[in-house]
Amino acid sequence: MARNGRYGLNEAIQVGFLGCGVVGGAAARIIAEHSPDLEERCGARIEIKLIAVRSLAKDREVSLPDQSFTTDPFEVVSDPDIHIVVEAMGGIEPALDLILTAIKNGKHVVTANKELMSTMGRDLVEAAESAGVDVLFEAAVGGGIPIIRPIKESLAGDRIRRVMGIVNGTTNYILTRMSERGEGFAEALGEAEALGYTELDPTADIEGFDAAQKTAILSSIAFNVLVVAGDVQREGIARVTAQDISAAHELGYEIKLLSVSEVADGAIAARVHPAMIPRTHPLANVRDVFNAVFVEGEESGELMFFGRGAGGGPTGSAIVGDVAEVARHIVSGGTSIGWTHRVRARITPLDNVRVRYYVVLSVLDEPGVLSAVAGVFAHYGVSIASVRQEGSGDGATLALITHAGTEGQHSKTFQELHALDVVKAVDSRIRVVGTEEL
Amino acid sequence: MARNGRYGLNEAIQVGFLGCGVVGGAAARIIAEHSPDLEERCGARIEIKLIAVRSLAKDREVSLPDQSFTTDPFEVVSDPDIHIVVEAMGGIEPALDLILTAIKNGKHVVTANKELMSTMGRDLVEAAESAGVDVLFEAAVGGGIPIIRPIKESLAGDRIRRVMGIVNGTTNYILTRMSERGEGFAEALGEAEALGYTELDPTADIEGFDAAQKTAILSSIAFNVLVVAGDVQREGIARVTAQDISAAHELGYEIKLLSVSEVADGAIAARVHPAMIPRTHPLANVRDVFNAVFVEGEESGELMFFGRGAGGGPTGSAIVGDVAEVARHIVSGGTSIGWTHRVRARITPLDNVRVRYYVVLSVLDEPGVLSAVAGVFAHYGVSIASVRQEGSGDGATLALITHAGTEGQHSKTFQELHALDVVKAVDSRIRVVGTEEL
Repeated sequence: MARNGRYGLNEAIQVGFLGCGVVGGAAARIIAEHSPDLEERCGARIEIKLIAVRSLAKDREVSLPDQSFTTDPFEVVSDPDIHIVVEAMGGIEPALDLILTAIKNGKHVVTANKELMSTMGRDLVEAAESAGVDVLFEAAVGGGIPIIRPIKESLAGDRIRRVMGIVNGTTNYILTRMSERGEGFAEALGEAEALGYTELDPTADIEGFDAAQKTAILSSIAFNVLVVAGDVQREGIARVTAQDISAAHELGYEIKLLSVSEVADGAIAARVHPAMIPRTHPLANVRDVFNAVFVEGEESGELMFFGRGAGGGPTGSAIVGDVAEVARHIVSGGTSIGWTHRVRARITPLDNVRVRYYVVLSVLDEPGVLSAVAGVFAHYGVSIASVRQEGSGDGATLALITHAGTEGQHSKTFQELHALDVVKAVDSRIRVVGTEEL
Repeated sequence: MARNGRYGLNEAIQVGFLGCGVVGGAAARIIAEHSPDLEERCGARIEIKLIAVRSLAKDREVSLPDQSFTTDPFEVVSDPDIHIVVEAMGGIEPALDLILTAIKNGKHVVTANKELMSTMGRDLVEAAESAGVDVLFEAAVGGGIPIIRPIKESLAGDRIRRVMGIVNGTTNYILTRMSERGEGFAEALGEAEALGYTELDPTADIEGFDAAQKTAILSSIAFNVLVVAGDVQREGIARVTAQDISAAHELGYEIKLLSVSEVADGAIAARVHPAMIPRTHPLANVRDVFNAVFVEGEESGELMFFGRGAGGGPTGSAIVGDVAEVARHIVSGGTSIGWTHRVRARITPLDNVRVRYYVVLSVLDEPGVLSAVAGVFAHYGVSIASVRQEGSGDGATLALITHAGTEGQHSKTFQELHALDVVKAVDSRIRVVGTEEL
């Protein structure tokens, strides 16, 4: 196989596909349709040699001769003519086995597989490095948004302190409906399902598993350490109520499912949870199915990358951008900035992460309640930034926003509040992010 | 000089600087401070050999031995040990002469010079190509925002239809003050001057010259043709009034100085002008000195890149990202995606560009005025989307928003309205952008 500038320009670069669904099909179509542009930018023609599919009977987005399709994915990773394998199947197996075989066979790999990269990423990258090939995965986070390459390359001279993102379009669509139309969670979820924005089982989106995988990848890239999906603390949006959102609006906030990762004292705190974020923050204005990643660099300051986090065209475009990069390396040599983060990150224990909370308590309507409640906060060293008493009788509530304290201080406070006679229930507790007081 | 993989890892890569002001000084400091990180990412140590300054007496942000400074910039571009020249002087001459000499001497060039790139970019890139070196210029547009590399590389597989940007921080600061505090233009400008956000002569910012240069560079990169600063239609913000902004708010819009470039039928329309943009559009929420570039791709859909468009840290970080890329090429071979756009763009005549307008007319308070005004619009084929009559007597006004029509149709309409007896004055005319009806 020709590499590192030893490539003859008369020979086209051959791409093989594993999977030809929404994403794989779009990437194949883009390669076929944009062939002249790609040749101009890469210095070589890029052709599709073989696509592994589940069924040969199905109509495909890309029109290729029959012999370009196979039901045996190992045929793709073993084909001696193929230079680049695009993996668009998803899931751990057989994708992992196929990619490792492709790498062993000297093929470069481009993948959109967030689950695989956030769990086995190190193994793939180390195998690729031994074999002298690239593994690129821009499409695994943020769909069509260029985020992996800008962080790795454009910000190579900076140090990133924090990455915050809206990295799941389904939950952002649901929260946008709740915010803009006053819908409840169940109603907004039904709408998302009706529009085909959810998986058959919406758990991975709703409970933040999908966002946690992307958070692990982003954290690894941003902080040059290895963070895996299991390192990411995770809380979904099912508990967010229409009341929470209207209360957030009154205070000048939106509620978003945020991915937050920070580095402090060499340890990483990475988590996914619903958060109140001030309306003036750029992330607060990311609506519907859009994604965005907000990056805070020591030198470059605040950056945000916004766009479509899913869908064939956007994700396919990200894949083709990676294919073009590999093609340039094949034509004229060079490699990508490697996955320099081999060392497993030290993870900040959740209890030590500093946060602020918005808390709503159902309380008895009698004198001394605020004093008792405030006493619990004070006992655990959590200062109260603002408090509001509302309603009366059975509907009496206290809504508080805390100053920064640790998760541990806050969770002990909430536990003891639960036990307090004057507190009937802790109705809501939502972290407050983006106020720069931590 | 070692290049294309023939580089011995024991030898450091030597960088020379032309200029050590806010931007150059920050870039030099970042290289010095982040040396281990850069070495890890590039595979070689990066050292600063020589910095050309105007005066040796001045204190510098980066601490280097005395012999690292010279007042003769030609010493930098002729030093046989230097691999990469960073140009951070600005202006056309002597920067052009120095860069061409550096290229002739086989040195790679990284520049933040938007004026030079938007006028002489083709010459520099062609000279670099002949000499087999890189010319990179991420810092020339959008300060610390990664935008040139993502468009060239990440979107290599896409076709871009339109680029809209807020690419001048000074004017965005002024318009934000006018929008959020109700200040007039002069007052907000004074505030920007007091904070040091303006040049000694604010004309280049206020009148859109700076934004036009950046628009030319963005258009060239996005559409793969050569667009120079003189191709960009330009209108500044001095005519925008506090009344315009409060009217925009009532209609659900913000007013921004927008860079807009589009491709249609193979021709480019590129312009800079104040525009009303819906508050739900991501660009409407870009506040203060922040910049953002909104990109519409055929495949990737809407993307936005947001961040700090000026300042030492952000611009220095962009320069160092480019230096790191060149260093990787020196160490392991490869080149950047070239400046493939050599062909001078066909520019759409301004009269043919399709736009919408918000128009305010001072009119006589008498029957038949609306009919006469509407007749003029109809005569030139411009449909009216909405109209509102306000005030009475001497203060009677008509505020209209048009449907899409050409600039030519609109400008003829405005001319004839001026001449109409019932119209005392055309108080405002501001283009409306981001409504997707063109």
